[in-house]
Amino acid sequence: MSPNPADSVFVRACRGEPTPYTPVWFMRQAGRALPEYRALREGSPMLPSCFRPELVTEITLQPVRRYGVDAAILFSDIVVPLKAIDVDLDIVPGTGPVIARPIRTWEDLEQLRPLEQGDVEPVLQAVKELVAELGPKPLIGFCGAPFTLASYLVEGGPSREHLKTKALMYGDPELWGALLTRLADITGEFLRLQVEAGVSVVQVFDSWAGTLTPQDYRQRVLRHSARVLAHVEGVPKIHFGVGTGELLGLMGEAGADVVGVDWRVPLDLAAGRVGDRAVQGNLDPALVVAAPWETVEAATLDVLARGRVAKGHIFNLGHGVLPDTDPDVLERVVELVHDTTRG
Amino acid sequence: MSPNPADSVFVRACRGEPTPYTPVWFMRQAGRALPEYRALREGSPMLPSCFRPELVTEITLQPVRRYGVDAAILFSDIVVPLKAIDVDLDIVPGTGPVIARPIRTWEDLEQLRPLEQGDVEPVLQAVKELVAELGPKPLIGFCGAPFTLASYLVEGGPSREHLKTKALMYGDPELWGALLTRLADITGEFLRLQVEAGVSVVQVFDSWAGTLTPQDYRQRVLRHSARVLAHVEGVPKIHFGVGTGELLGLMGEAGADVVGVDWRVPLDLAAGRVGDRAVQGNLDPALVVAAPWETVEAATLDVLARGRVAKGHIFNLGHGVLPDTDPDVLERVVELVHDTTRG
Repeated sequence: MSPNPADSVFVRACRGEPTPYTPVWFMRQAGRALPEYRALREGSPMLPSCFRPELVTEITLQPVRRYGVDAAILFSDIVVPLKAIDVDLDIVPGTGPVIARPIRTWEDLEQLRPLEQGDVEPVLQAVKELVAELGPKPLIGFCGAPFTLASYLVEGGPSREHLKTKALMYGDPELWGALLTRLADITGEFLRLQVEAGVSVVQVFDSWAGTLTPQDYRQRVLRHSARVLAHVEGVPKIHFGVGTGELLGLMGEAGADVVGVDWRVPLDLAAGRVGDRAVQGNLDPALVVAAPWETVEAATLDVLARGRVAKGHIFNLGHGVLPDTDPDVLERVVELVHDTTRG
Repeated sequence: MSPNPADSVFVRACRGEPTPYTPVWFMRQAGRALPEYRALREGSPMLPSCFRPELVTEITLQPVRRYGVDAAILFSDIVVPLKAIDVDLDIVPGTGPVIARPIRTWEDLEQLRPLEQGDVEPVLQAVKELVAELGPKPLIGFCGAPFTLASYLVEGGPSREHLKTKALMYGDPELWGALLTRLADITGEFLRLQVEAGVSVVQVFDSWAGTLTPQDYRQRVLRHSARVLAHVEGVPKIHFGVGTGELLGLMGEAGADVVGVDWRVPLDLAAGRVGDRAVQGNLDPALVVAAPWETVEAATLDVLARGRVAKGHIFNLGHGVLPDTDPDVLERVVELVHDTTRG
């Protein structure tokens, strides 16, 4: 293998180039499923942890050692760039991000100033350390998409129906556009800085986009996600959401090289929807927790078989690793994916 | 209009026959969005309310008077037949159904005895009163699908990841099959009794089926939902779930005349997936709450335009009416649907 992560199997698969085997990593691979992660995080709340380079580095490396995955992903959270520009928010265990002053007026918008390099220096330092440490293994940088970030900021926290977010989106298109543009520039700049610091691939998470109709996504959201992706050049870009079966084509059009697919859409169908792009996914994360190995094995092989019709395939779960996951099962999945697809 | 509900516009649309205009009703039209409902339910917990014929009758009629919809739907809950056979459960406000002794073993299964007519006599009495009261206006009966009921019974309550349910589904296919067969017979018999008592159409709610891959739905769930639908003859059958974009074809194959579609899938796409069947849906219930009238109007017209390619179209929301909904908006939607589609 070449010593340059840009020539790695994972990055080549993202570009849709032929690879000697199917690369694999797991969303939220650095997380509570790993006992070594739980030990390291003990007593250290989530958000401050994301600004401690030595902790970020170690947590990011843990799953690489454990699973033998083909890429590391920076340990962070999509609200980190908001915290970095001093938005008053916290990640509450068992709840998620909670915003002190939700954004619903033009005045509220003033909480969102442009992000500068100095705001995220500890994160960029972790990226540089990781790139040095990882050598030929690629590091994935990431950020949240404007719609998903806006939904937290407008609701004040996680939400089921996103009623306040939709009220703003439908009721005040001008303020909505201004909010999502600011978010796109904050998060896009954060992504660009990660690339500058050495990440080999970026992923944009639009976790809540699946609540939108394709018509609304196209008309009110797509251009802002495209704006995020346009901040970045020179590395492959992955665009992921949950429940986005009808949005896959549009998420590709936003400027992605790879479209992430949740477990609901068979990958061969997804490949047809994303056009001339690679796909990433899409084993059900619950199946990995709940099913005996024979079922996990069969489902993994099914994902691989369906992925073959795509321009490129990066194996992953359809959403993040669940905390109850047995790490040994994920390790076996990595082996199975590699062994099955090796020429 | 003929005095027989079987010849009503709604029932004919369910059968895919030509109609003078597009019929409309709303899932959870009898509910907290209506002040008259909140007044009537005050001090009366959900489950006992479902067994009080005079209350069921009045609550069922409220939205018919208010909205001018083309069908009434029996006020009830999908766990009513389980309560009727003495499963120890309650509907906890703000939470949902909570099961005292979750079902995870063969022994636990003994909680599920066959349902007999005497168990649901008050419900059937309400159906008969309603049919008399409604005259030519059709009444919809309903039940929950085995997967969704099983998920409550196995988890012990509502769940996000359905891990215990999936553990049983993958880990013990024999017990899983026995559980879903029992549930199919309980709920299918309940549906058959509703038809016998006079409902003109039935709807099966599989609220959580959207958590399944199409492969798992086909292999582990479909036949049980088909078993429910097979209990009923002589009336059109609607089959509905949320997040079921990739399951629409299979939900039709289970034996439905009409497939309900959530707001994520444009109806013209949905029509292509359900084959020679009618579709029901699919205005975003959050949009109705959150958007100004012009947006609600445009979205309603878009749904109608897309629905035209289907074999038949019953206008509805893509999921239940949200409690924050303004009843006046729904009333205007009914008028708009009728006025726009009247020849």
